[in-house]
Amino acid sequence: MAERELDALIVSSMPNVLYLTNFTGSTALAVVTADAVWFLTDSRYVDEVTATGEMPDACPGLELVKVDGSYDATLVARLEMMSSAHVGFESQHVSVERFDSWQRALSKAARGVTLTPTRLLVERARARKDQHELRVLREAATRLSRVATDVLADVQRGRAERDLALAIDWRIRSAGFERLAFDTIVASGPNSGLPHARPGERILREGDLVVLDFGGVYASYCVDLTRTVSIGSASARAKEVYAAVLEAHDRAVASVRVGQSRFGVDAAARDALGEAGLAEAFGHGTGHGLGLEVHEDPRIARRHPDIDAGDEALEAGMVFTIEPGAYFPGWGGVRIEDDVVVTEAGVEVLTSVTTALVEL
Amino acid sequence: MAERELDALIVSSMPNVLYLTNFTGSTALAVVTADAVWFLTDSRYVDEVTATGEMPDACPGLELVKVDGSYDATLVARLEMMSSAHVGFESQHVSVERFDSWQRALSKAARGVTLTPTRLLVERARARKDQHELRVLREAATRLSRVATDVLADVQRGRAERDLALAIDWRIRSAGFERLAFDTIVASGPNSGLPHARPGERILREGDLVVLDFGGVYASYCVDLTRTVSIGSASARAKEVYAAVLEAHDRAVASVRVGQSRFGVDAAARDALGEAGLAEAFGHGTGHGLGLEVHEDPRIARRHPDIDAGDEALEAGMVFTIEPGAYFPGWGGVRIEDDVVVTEAGVEVLTSVTTALVEL
Repeated sequence: MAERELDALIVSSMPNVLYLTNFTGSTALAVVTADAVWFLTDSRYVDEVTATGEMPDACPGLELVKVDGSYDATLVARLEMMSSAHVGFESQHVSVERFDSWQRALSKAARGVTLTPTRLLVERARARKDQHELRVLREAATRLSRVATDVLADVQRGRAERDLALAIDWRIRSAGFERLAFDTIVASGPNSGLPHARPGERILREGDLVVLDFGGVYASYCVDLTRTVSIGSASARAKEVYAAVLEAHDRAVASVRVGQSRFGVDAAARDALGEAGLAEAFGHGTGHGLGLEVHEDPRIARRHPDIDAGDEALEAGMVFTIEPGAYFPGWGGVRIEDDVVVTEAGVEVLTSVTTALVEL
Repeated sequence: MAERELDALIVSSMPNVLYLTNFTGSTALAVVTADAVWFLTDSRYVDEVTATGEMPDACPGLELVKVDGSYDATLVARLEMMSSAHVGFESQHVSVERFDSWQRALSKAARGVTLTPTRLLVERARARKDQHELRVLREAATRLSRVATDVLADVQRGRAERDLALAIDWRIRSAGFERLAFDTIVASGPNSGLPHARPGERILREGDLVVLDFGGVYASYCVDLTRTVSIGSASARAKEVYAAVLEAHDRAVASVRVGQSRFGVDAAARDALGEAGLAEAFGHGTGHGLGLEVHEDPRIARRHPDIDAGDEALEAGMVFTIEPGAYFPGWGGVRIEDDVVVTEAGVEVLTSVTTALVEL
């Protein structure tokens, strides 16, 4: 903020608000200044925050502002207390309508408050996890790995994808996760050839490859894991594809280190699949950051000139998935996913489940 | 669009995209023109749409546009094909950053495409459900009502809130819902005095009031239901509060008819609680619209001059919750919630579970 010459920053993205204040409700605004955080929320949460003492003192300088009616009117009234201030806002997270209403109200007041677009100020801090966050993520990954191991007992011939997904979801919740991180994927037989298949009525049968992709939110942090198993003996072709995807997974993990480009990690996986003649079968990115959101920075993908500029070197504390795959519509597919953290020493794999092809 | 003199409308809100095209994936853009709908999505979904035939022919004039890289670049390239066009966008759902990038790219091209903010164009249509939507919502409400009845068997002394919530969630998923509509609330004893309590480790015990508030998404549509039960005999005070909330619920339901103000439905509930001396105990609104989102228009609440303008008369086909409550921090609370649809004849209550106070 000092670098950008901002007197205050309006934080409206809820994961960013949660990051700064530990508030897990659905609606709030935070305004960060040099010496205080104004925390705006409505009566629903003010009462609960007071009653449950859920608001942590971990946020120094937090000042609770109760919103009665409109968040935007309350925000503008607070901003008007700062004359001639340069106030940043999160331009990726504020709608055109909301911004226009702020501008209109502030121009009426004419106290010289100017609004300046900012991007990624809080997200950049979020991308490097601190020791507390890493402890939470390690615990979450350990619990999810146990779920993954236990789930193998649920993968049975004759069972419908949807029913297996429900069993997985029950295990995730029973393992202490507060919610699913995303809708669980169970994709069997030809469905495994679709990276984003949704579980349906298809019955698991002999010879199927089954992609199991699931995640949970634990103490507000997301973890995510995929294994592909075979019902009965895998065909030679299935073993070949599995081995190529595993090689891509292992090479991508091995490539992780401080200073490595995130595009380089993607390239490690992509090159391995290319050498196996499977370049065309790998359409998605190699991974995505994990934290308060299940998809956040850093994105481990091909560089795309339309979208990507800078910010490519991995830093210690970054946590993300490594999840190469190979998909053949009509035949099936394989994906293997683990969660890793960049360390000063290289890489630590947080999830821990066998990567050998399990034939059930 | 014709009224607003728009040649095209960019639809970027995902529930609005789903409403117009039946696409249930996470990322897409739709551009509606007088005679076509350009549907922009990326390879993940193009392949699946092709493979599963999930894209319905229910959307006439749909033209699939595959995005390679940036959605915004693909969008701008399509818009540039229309010279001198007036193009609307959803100003509540487009970020300042995204809008600025569209403006920059279009001004370079200088083909005279102008962007005009619009609001609620698709949402207004969504608020009035058609016959197909009402069939889906009736089925969803019937299933959720069955869950609510079955859940009574799970409410047991000695059980932790979190464990009961998990049992409810399992029932919802087993009843054919694709996911939960929101995190289930189980609030027992003093926790029931907090309208948005989250289930925790508290153990249900004799004399507790327990608020059970849960919902599911069925064929993309959300339903939502709350009942408050007593563990053992309810105290005289609990019975009194329950009776007042039930009276508020019944009067609000009875007030629903075409042309009634949504503020009037809220007032019916609020006045009933006021007559019982409980006005201060009812801090939230009386209800919210249900549909592709679990909170949508119409909002059944007090009129707030900062926020509300027009749009107050209920129309046939509108579906919303009626959920008055009374909360006493430290003591407990009661909420009773049903889902209703406005009909030409008055009102149809979609959910069907006893509203008598159940003492377990």
